[in-house]
Amino acid sequence: MLFSKTFIPILKNNPSEAVIKSHQLMLRVGMIKQSSAGIYSWLPLGFKVMKKIEQIVREEQNKIGAQEILMPTIQSSEIWKESGRYEDYGEEMLRIQDRQNREMLYGPTNEELITDIFRSSIKSYKSLPQLLYHIQWKFRDELRPRFGIMRCREFYMKDAYSFDLNDDDAKFSYNKFFLSYLRTFKRLDLSAIPMAADTGPIGGNLSHEFVILAETGESKIYTDKRIFEVSSENTKLDKKSLSNLREKYEKFYAVTDEKFDKKKFEENVPKEFRLNTKGIEVGHIFYFGDKYSKPMSASVDFQGKKEFVKMGSYGVGVSRLVGAIIEAKYDDKNEVMKWPISIAPYECSIIPLINKNDNSNLDKAHNIYNYLKGKNIDTIVDDTDENFSSKIKKFNLIGIPFQIMIGKKSEGDLFEFVEVGKEAKNLSIEDIAKIIINKKK
Amino acid sequence: MLFSKTFIPILKNNPSEAVIKSHQLMLRVGMIKQSSAGIYSWLPLGFKVMKKIEQIVREEQNKIGAQEILMPTIQSSEIWKESGRYEDYGEEMLRIQDRQNREMLYGPTNEELITDIFRSSIKSYKSLPQLLYHIQWKFRDELRPRFGIMRCREFYMKDAYSFDLNDDDAKFSYNKFFLSYLRTFKRLDLSAIPMAADTGPIGGNLSHEFVILAETGESKIYTDKRIFEVSSENTKLDKKSLSNLREKYEKFYAVTDEKFDKKKFEENVPKEFRLNTKGIEVGHIFYFGDKYSKPMSASVDFQGKKEFVKMGSYGVGVSRLVGAIIEAKYDDKNEVMKWPISIAPYECSIIPLINKNDNSNLDKAHNIYNYLKGKNIDTIVDDTDENFSSKIKKFNLIGIPFQIMIGKKSEGDLFEFVEVGKEAKNLSIEDIAKIIINKKK
Repeated sequence: MLFSKTFIPILKNNPSEAVIKSHQLMLRVGMIKQSSAGIYSWLPLGFKVMKKIEQIVREEQNKIGAQEILMPTIQSSEIWKESGRYEDYGEEMLRIQDRQNREMLYGPTNEELITDIFRSSIKSYKSLPQLLYHIQWKFRDELRPRFGIMRCREFYMKDAYSFDLNDDDAKFSYNKFFLSYLRTFKRLDLSAIPMAADTGPIGGNLSHEFVILAETGESKIYTDKRIFEVSSENTKLDKKSLSNLREKYEKFYAVTDEKFDKKKFEENVPKEFRLNTKGIEVGHIFYFGDKYSKPMSASVDFQGKKEFVKMGSYGVGVSRLVGAIIEAKYDDKNEVMKWPISIAPYECSIIPLINKNDNSNLDKAHNIYNYLKGKNIDTIVDDTDENFSSKIKKFNLIGIPFQIMIGKKSEGDLFEFVEVGKEAKNLSIEDIAKIIINKKK
Repeated sequence: MLFSKTFIPILKNNPSEAVIKSHQLMLRVGMIKQSSAGIYSWLPLGFKVMKKIEQIVREEQNKIGAQEILMPTIQSSEIWKESGRYEDYGEEMLRIQDRQNREMLYGPTNEELITDIFRSSIKSYKSLPQLLYHIQWKFRDELRPRFGIMRCREFYMKDAYSFDLNDDDAKFSYNKFFLSYLRTFKRLDLSAIPMAADTGPIGGNLSHEFVILAETGESKIYTDKRIFEVSSENTKLDKKSLSNLREKYEKFYAVTDEKFDKKKFEENVPKEFRLNTKGIEVGHIFYFGDKYSKPMSASVDFQGKKEFVKMGSYGVGVSRLVGAIIEAKYDDKNEVMKWPISIAPYECSIIPLINKNDNSNLDKAHNIYNYLKGKNIDTIVDDTDENFSSKIKKFNLIGIPFQIMIGKKSEGDLFEFVEVGKEAKNLSIEDIAKIIINKKK
């Protein structure tokens, strides 16, 4: 791709309305554009990153046997009245009257709708478990939307729902998502800690939130540093292996300020392992038994009786993750971003020094571009007539993890190659391709 | 995938509320479920088909150099007041008041929002052309939603927008989409005819709709049969080649009843080539110059002057195509559907005859499944204890294009293999894989 042909509207300076670094960077490099309060359009650069995150989330849902569906954004109020949440939900629910004066709403979450789908389709316990998920836009009418896409009104979320016959099976489903989330965040190059959490308006008595460390995080977190050494690597999709995994995590104290208890923290965590920092919630899982299935009559036949199914729900903020990853990775002092290669908008940038009346560097750039394209490396060439140093500054912000400079320092068949944040090296194009391909594995 | 593990809720009979065949079939095989009037959830089978259509649409947009973005579903009324369409649009626009009493709406189309994005980002004619598209949910508050997803309220649509300096360049952009649409529908195995069309509420003076033939279609169409012989195969992405393509099509009379003129039809079309039938609109493209850029002040600097950009818009109904393809392909007399393999929910089904206390056919099915999986063929095994003939009936409805029966007629290493709608053959699994792989090319 040529930079001159892309739609990447770069701002010279940090926009004054943005106070946190993800919001600043996303506006600065044209990843998003606000269309109204708390509502954003995703421009090509931001869109590409979000889609790659979505795909990783999807693959990890599929791996635990969850099936993808798609529920609509607009829901009828009727099912929310059945569950009893229509009045409870308050002003954050965007309520709508259609032309026939029916009460509708823009879904902030989908427990009611999925329960309605389940009850009209599944009759026998033999069809259990069912793990269903969708990735869809949701709306919460925040009173004061702020921090860009981190606390916005229209947001993109993966929400999954599990249906089981009894508590024991339901916890097995819960633990599958527990594992799936650890794997998802690992592929996004994030250290996410599962923390015992309150259940809030979703309800239930078992819940974990997944929190990543970031200085600018909205929650205070208190944990035992040894939790970072727990590995999910050899966990299998069976009951025992999964419950062992949860035990390994739950041995260590890890809570947000909502659940913080100073005495417990100090009793359970030796001084040298205490960590008190800030974090961002990127996922939340809930087990709530028959909280929805009972009022909505979602049951299966089992041994001649109707049993209300036991349900859980499991959310990952897909659009929010874009911002969370920036909060975790962006060095705003030096204005350098580096995306994990799994979700980078491009994998490599080529930055030629272009002199008037001399196209030789641009020609080299095109040749390298074609070579890398043949190796399936997604590359962008900066063919604009900006000066070299402002191009480099720009690409440090955009955060493409690898850069090839074609300037004064390139010699013969060797080019200046930078893995962002590391020292430049002079390498052949073959060696450059090898390094990038290796990183993608 | 095992049928017993999927979420495919099959109905025994045609649902009484459905009057057209796509609506009947989609409910019958559990592709969709209505959640409220004109609003549907997409269950796994329907979701897979829609996602595959979306991906083909996307690839063909990318091939002409269009860039993908994503605009939100909820828009502010302000930009619609700027363009003058806020009042005009009538009751089909779903109007919403948020908690701060701001006037919002659920976007039925995005000319205003994209013009707003353009005007705040692009300043110079050197950045033209810009072709931008997104694939997003839209809402039209139909008074009488009906025919399932063919005339629903919440629908999934690809809409693209082009921005150019002058009429000539803008028509070049228009023609790129003209070609892109022909290629898209061809990959979906549809014969789509481009027809001169009225512009309606979008505005402008040049427009084509793309219509596929279907007996149950909503529009009457009048055309010259020779239009089906026009090919876009060797068309290149240059001005001349594209305008030749349009000329080749425009030589032949082709209109819907809105534009029908009996005298012209009879003058222009020799009797033996006259075709008067029904069709379904699956795409619509518009050129409208500065209809939006002028009132919304979207201009670029050119030779010291501000020039309002010349715009077009280009829509494909992605969710609607699922229904349209069923209308075109489903033989409802014999209850046999056959999806084009490019968008089939699975590529092959394996239907074993299962006897009590004898798992040998099911074991064979698993072996074949694993073999085909190794060949990257997406296969589903019907491991349920339904009887053989009702399984076959079910799979004829679901429309997976290839079936392998493991029953009385399979001999040794040969299995009964059916390409839906053709004669059964006894073939080895290697030969079966070859046929399927060949069809996928």
